[in-house]
Formats: sequence, C-alpha cells, structure tokens
Amino acid sequence: MKIYDVEGFPNPARVRIALAEKGAFENVSFIPVDVMGGEHRTEAFKKINPDAAVPCLELDDGTRISQCNAIIEYIDGEFENGPSLTGENHRERAVISMMNIRAETGLLNAVGNYFHHATPGLGPKLEVYQNKDWGLKQRDVATNTMAYLDEVLSKNAYVAGDKFSMADITVFAGLAFADFAKIEIPANLTNLAAWRKKMNARPSIAA
Amino acid sequence: MKIYDVEGFPNPARVRIALAEKGAFENVSFIPVDVMGGEHRTEAFKKINPDAAVPCLELDDGTRISQCNAIIEYIDGEFENGPSLTGENHRERAVISMMNIRAETGLLNAVGNYFHHATPGLGPKLEVYQNKDWGLKQRDVATNTMAYLDEVLSKNAYVAGDKFSMADITVFAGLAFADFAKIEIPANLTNLAAWRKKMNARPSIAA
Repeated sequence: MKIYDVEGFPNPARVRIALAEKGAFENVSFIPVDVMGGEHRTEAFKKINPDAAVPCLELDDGTRISQCNAIIEYIDGEFENGPSLTGENHRERAVISMMNIRAETGLLNAVGNYFHHATPGLGPKLEVYQNKDWGLKQRDVATNTMAYLDEVLSKNAYVAGDKFSMADITVFAGLAFADFAKIEIPANLTNLAAWRKKMNARPSIAA
Repeated sequence: MKIYDVEGFPNPARVRIALAEKGAFENVSFIPVDVMGGEHRTEAFKKINPDAAVPCLELDDGTRISQCNAIIEYIDGEFENGPSLTGENHRERAVISMMNIRAETGLLNAVGNYFHHATPGLGPKLEVYQNKDWGLKQRDVATNTMAYLDEVLSKNAYVAGDKFSMADITVFAGLAFADFAKIEIPANLTNLAAWRKKMNARPSIAA
C-alpha cells in the first residue's frame, strides 16, 4: 500500500507513528506531495483525495482512505503486531474515540487553526483565507485542552486510560505542533510533561 | 444506560436515530438538559461532561462517553440488532469513518459554525463569542460539501458505499440543520434529494 504525504507535518506524523507502533513501516511506500508548492490543491491531487489534504492511504485495489482517524483505523485492523490503537472491544473503542476526538478538536486542530489564521502559517500563497480573531480564540482552546489533559494524566497513565492508544498519538502530535507554532505549554502542567517524556522514549517516536 | 441530551437538536438526533436503527431505544433513559438555559455550561454539568455539550452517554458502571461518534461506536457494538453502523471489518470501518468525518466536518459542523457565528444562533446569552466572517465562510464549506455528497450519491446508494451507515445519519442531521439555519440546499443536487427521500422513509426517521 501507498501513502501520499509529506514528512514532518503533524497529521502525516500521526500515521507514521501508528505504522511504527504496528511494526508496519516497511509495508508502505510513501509518495511525497509538494504541499508547500500547493500540489495538494491541484485538480490532479483532488482526484486522489477530494479533501485536498495529506495524508491519504491508497490500498492495492485502488481504494483511497483519507482522514487520519480512518487511516489509523485501517492500519490497526490490518496489522496484528504491536498495541491495539483503537481498542479491543466496543467499550474501549468508544472511550478511545472520545478522547481522540477531544485531543484532535481541542488541541491538534486548535493549534492548526491558530497557526493558519493568526500567524503567517504556510505563507501568503497557501493561506488564502485568514481570520486572525478566530485563530487567537483557537489558541485559547488549545491551552485549555492542555490543562484538561494534564488533569486526565494525573489519574491515568495514558490519555484514554491505562493503555497506550491512538489518542496518545494525537496529543503527542498536537504538542509538537504547539511547539512549532510557538504556543507555550504551561510549565505547571507536570503530568502532561511526564507523559510526554514517556512518549518520547517509545521506539515509534525515538527512532 | 442513560443519555443526557435535548430532543430535537442535531447531535442528539444522530444518537437517537442510531438507537432506533439498532432497536435499542427502550434500553435508554433520557435525561433532559436545559441547553437553552445554559445548563450544559454549568460546573455541575461539566463534571458529567467536560465538553460542556450534549449528548453524553452514561453506562451503568458510571462511565461517561461523550462525542456522537464515540457514543454511536458504543451503541453499535452493544446492540446486535439492525444494520452495522460502523462497519463489519477494518476496511469497511475505515471507509465509513472517512465519509463520516467528511460529513461531520464539511456539513454538520460547518452548518453549526454558520448558525452560531453568522446568525443570532441560540441568542445573546449563549452566543458569547461570535465571528461573523468565519461563520459565513463555513456556510460556503457546507454548500460545497453538499455538492460533493451529491456526486458521491450519483455512484453509491449510501454515503459510504452500498450499505447504510453512521455516515448517512450524519449527513441526514446535517441537512436537517441546514434547513433550520436557512442554508439553501441547491435544487440541482438531485442525487442528494433522492437519497434524502429514501432516508425519510426509514422507520428510524419516519417514526
């Protein structure tokens, strides 16, 4: 299978960490997309992924799956090695899904909205619509979510409970994006910091 | 189990349709939340659901699950009757997840952003931050997504392929919200209109 993406960007990083956790990195060939050159918005690429975004997974039968959560769902089911990223029964799945959505909406996407709307973002050629006030509001959302996650991690070893899951990957990518976008992670959030240190030591991330 | 919600609102409607599809409506007691009075934003309610939103599912062991997609994930796994709403294998799950996210982000949430930001929404007491320009932009997103879905439905019987799924529920709730928010559904989207007629006839919706 193939993945259209660009190395180092937040959402592609989520899928690459998921692949590494499942020991499946070698099963994928990566096709670089020139996002900085606007390739993802061309009509040619929109035929591959109407979302005009990376990453996008292409199966051997030609089926294309975009949206990180859907791609990780596929990867988790396809490869048996490594931890379950989406949960082993419907109760686990529901809790992981909830925490993952909270991390995505409240942290990763909020940071992204700040970056694309309230900073120069990817530059004037790509940032064709900016709404600074909205971006600044979303920075507050991100900071509030960090505090919420710190409280969660004061009780749980991982974001969705006592086991690692895709929700941890989403928070990890969100904090990395916050660093990049220069959103301060409050120093008093010591549970979040301790969890991050633990995440940094995982082979899927340290490698 | 219990569900905290308010009847007639778009996201609560998604969960109620899912329950009806699974023949599980009678297994739930509904606890009304006074959203118009701001009850969902009180400290007392945020202890139940930190998202300060409805719906929120509470299991008999006290576990609380918020976020529609997570709640429907739980309902689909818990009740065996009716169609599979989330997919029967990881390939189906991934495609349904992708289409559901597209419908949620591009239609339902886009309509919600228009309603809450570019119209009086739920009134001045509840709409404490409005960004009209952002709301108008999101109306365009919703209209574009309707056109995308019309194209999808020119090839598929349902939003995620040849079977009904939670992605159909999300589109249905999104179009109902568009009607409520007075966002026009373009008359030339005949595939979308035909699909909607078919949805209106399902017992989970017609009842």
